[in-house]
Amino acid sequence: MMPLSDQRATSTDSYGGTLQGVRQVSARSRVVIIGGGFGGLEAARSLGGKAVDVTLIDRKNHHVFQPLLYQVATAVLSPGEIAQPIRRILHRYRNIEVILGEAVAVRADHGVVELSDGAEVPFDRLIVAAGARHSYFGNDGWSTFAPGLKTIEDALEIRRRVLLAFELAERDAYLTGKKPDLAFVVVGGGPTGVEMAGAIADIARQVLANDFNAIDTRKARVILLEGSDRVLGTFAGDLSDSAKEQLEELGVEVRLNSYVKDVESGRVRVGDDWIGCDVLVWATGVAASTLGSKLGVETDRAGRVIVEPDLSIPGHPNIFVIGDMAHFEQPNGEPVPGVSPAAMQMGRHAARNIIADLNGRERQPFVYRDKGSMATIGRSRAIAQSGRLKFSGFIAWLMWLFLHVFYLIGFRNRLAVMTDWFWAYLTRVRSARLITGDAEELSDALEFIRGRRG
Amino acid sequence: MMPLSDQRATSTDSYGGTLQGVRQVSARSRVVIIGGGFGGLEAARSLGGKAVDVTLIDRKNHHVFQPLLYQVATAVLSPGEIAQPIRRILHRYRNIEVILGEAVAVRADHGVVELSDGAEVPFDRLIVAAGARHSYFGNDGWSTFAPGLKTIEDALEIRRRVLLAFELAERDAYLTGKKPDLAFVVVGGGPTGVEMAGAIADIARQVLANDFNAIDTRKARVILLEGSDRVLGTFAGDLSDSAKEQLEELGVEVRLNSYVKDVESGRVRVGDDWIGCDVLVWATGVAASTLGSKLGVETDRAGRVIVEPDLSIPGHPNIFVIGDMAHFEQPNGEPVPGVSPAAMQMGRHAARNIIADLNGRERQPFVYRDKGSMATIGRSRAIAQSGRLKFSGFIAWLMWLFLHVFYLIGFRNRLAVMTDWFWAYLTRVRSARLITGDAEELSDALEFIRGRRG
Repeated sequence: MMPLSDQRATSTDSYGGTLQGVRQVSARSRVVIIGGGFGGLEAARSLGGKAVDVTLIDRKNHHVFQPLLYQVATAVLSPGEIAQPIRRILHRYRNIEVILGEAVAVRADHGVVELSDGAEVPFDRLIVAAGARHSYFGNDGWSTFAPGLKTIEDALEIRRRVLLAFELAERDAYLTGKKPDLAFVVVGGGPTGVEMAGAIADIARQVLANDFNAIDTRKARVILLEGSDRVLGTFAGDLSDSAKEQLEELGVEVRLNSYVKDVESGRVRVGDDWIGCDVLVWATGVAASTLGSKLGVETDRAGRVIVEPDLSIPGHPNIFVIGDMAHFEQPNGEPVPGVSPAAMQMGRHAARNIIADLNGRERQPFVYRDKGSMATIGRSRAIAQSGRLKFSGFIAWLMWLFLHVFYLIGFRNRLAVMTDWFWAYLTRVRSARLITGDAEELSDALEFIRGRRG
Repeated sequence: MMPLSDQRATSTDSYGGTLQGVRQVSARSRVVIIGGGFGGLEAARSLGGKAVDVTLIDRKNHHVFQPLLYQVATAVLSPGEIAQPIRRILHRYRNIEVILGEAVAVRADHGVVELSDGAEVPFDRLIVAAGARHSYFGNDGWSTFAPGLKTIEDALEIRRRVLLAFELAERDAYLTGKKPDLAFVVVGGGPTGVEMAGAIADIARQVLANDFNAIDTRKARVILLEGSDRVLGTFAGDLSDSAKEQLEELGVEVRLNSYVKDVESGRVRVGDDWIGCDVLVWATGVAASTLGSKLGVETDRAGRVIVEPDLSIPGHPNIFVIGDMAHFEQPNGEPVPGVSPAAMQMGRHAARNIIADLNGRERQPFVYRDKGSMATIGRSRAIAQSGRLKFSGFIAWLMWLFLHVFYLIGFRNRLAVMTDWFWAYLTRVRSARLITGDAEELSDALEFIRGRRG
């Protein structure tokens, strides 16, 4: 590939100069993409092989298939099965450079992205797709007690805590003869919370049942706390009810209208009641990447940038914001939901609008196409809805299964995941039941559990 | 299973009282095993279903198949593929209890093992199989610069550093136009060092070659430092020579008679020469678990306990020490090597001698049966020797391949590993090329590399 210096030399393109610049062969627009999630990756793919020089920047070297992250957190899959190096995914595109780095600021007027170590990456056009994290409603201190589930590290942290809770209970029961009352609390009745609660119940009731002697893992309590009056609130009411029933069949205690008021080591407070728990998982709230607020344009309460119909930001038509970071209002007044299909559609659309610029064509407004949504609840259980069609139970689960394997990036991963799922389904044996982590990581987990056992 | 209290009540067995005690049905000897490595696990298996109550204590919840650890360190396999929960491996044995805990002391006279948190585990007979770690020749401070390779965490640390080195080099080259001279140094020409050097060379020359644009990963230097005058010193001389040639074919610089005198961030000193490197891997020196020195019996320079012919320790016939912790002198004067087959043989033998006690039979002296040894050097390369038979190159590699898959614990893992190996062999694509770790872990790795780049 061309060393950067040459690129700099030949690239006379700035947003204003594009329409002329693009007609000279040598002038290639420099497109920078921040974030290698679903949105950023789709944008990069759509620009692959086009007459632009693309630079994708991500803090991690890997793209994570987030819909399956909860299966890493519950020891069904290994991290390598749901994550792939971004540069591997994009290696066939010679015009795409992938660099590891953390974008901390965008100097819109200068066309420069600043990295955490002070390095600067110049751009003619920018696609910001830095995603979102869970929000702790202004209590970020809770994050050490109640890990969220957005990264591989998050998933390994939760896996560590869940497995450690059972190990310590077994150890205490064996050494003291006392049987501890294990309890796992998941905060948030959205897809992630429902998946986590169902998966933890499945581990306790089935997977670990035969491997422990001093304790009966089936007696562990799994409690799902949801602030609203139903779980999976984005689905139709009857599907929410079905999801709740399916969770309860799995042995999950679903508590609706239950807002978390406080969190401490070993316990969580709802209203005036403290609920003791060995592991607390946080699966609610959305806080868009802080990069959005630094763009100097209007954001919504979750920190999402309110974008124009073409996905660019007001006053800077060469800067696009997509995915979980973008607040895009649909004709019906509803914002586009923060789901991976929406992010991918936005990524493709932003790329198309950039190509349109370069070819002197009109940009098109973004239109979100909702192909429907599904949530899995546990082994053989799920709900799904697409337009007027609704499914629940085993059929919905099969649909979920094949759709997720199909969308999982990389054939080998698909194969490995299929193998692991098939194996886990037949034998209920987990392939990734490892407690790993350095002393510090382990002590965080231990502290919380000790906080409960006193 | 019987709650502990009952066990305590019925178990009148102490070493002295055994021979009578065992004849009462209710009196079951309490055997404690420290360590779930190859030795401890074999001992536990051999005691499974016998008339004893076994308690296996390990710091980790998983057994690691160490011969393949270097493949996790080099992103071929995922941790879950070479490690399994100890309680899962032993779950079919009702008389075996597995507990997570760190044994810090053995009170031999009181028959009690002390755990790090003060808990006490009583025993009638004890098998100490806590293994060994790399030794830094009295410079433990070097460990932060040069990680060893004994645990899953070690392997992930090395994987993180190796992949990060390439990522940072690509980033620097892209942002500055300067091409950095990547260098990887492996200290120690034993099996682990040879495997690591070969695997790193394979990554640089083949696996990553097409995924990087700004740098040519093939130009990365891989240097293997060995203190003696040949690599794989435990093999026949001509096999050592063959191994050296095979390493050099892979592009590894093998430096013999090269003792490491000092280590700093970004560099390692041999004699008076400092060798700059992005990653330094430590694969030499043996330091037995400190538990051995706390037994109050004679140890050798590596801290290994000098054991009796029956594998027990002088003055305490109810305490056995096995595996890498044991110094057992063979008739030819040579100590049994610290390899997994030896540890497994010792584990089985210690268990047999315990059963012999209980049945009033004579203990038998341990005899090590050397079935031969092999070391892999890289893709399609290895050496192997068994008695007078010697192999090298592709045939030796095939032998290595099937033997290791065969011995890998758990059918599913074997299947997954086979799939990954076959896939990696055909496509040279790695399935586990992830840089993971919390901020602290990453900063350790970054610090070393920055130390070099200044």
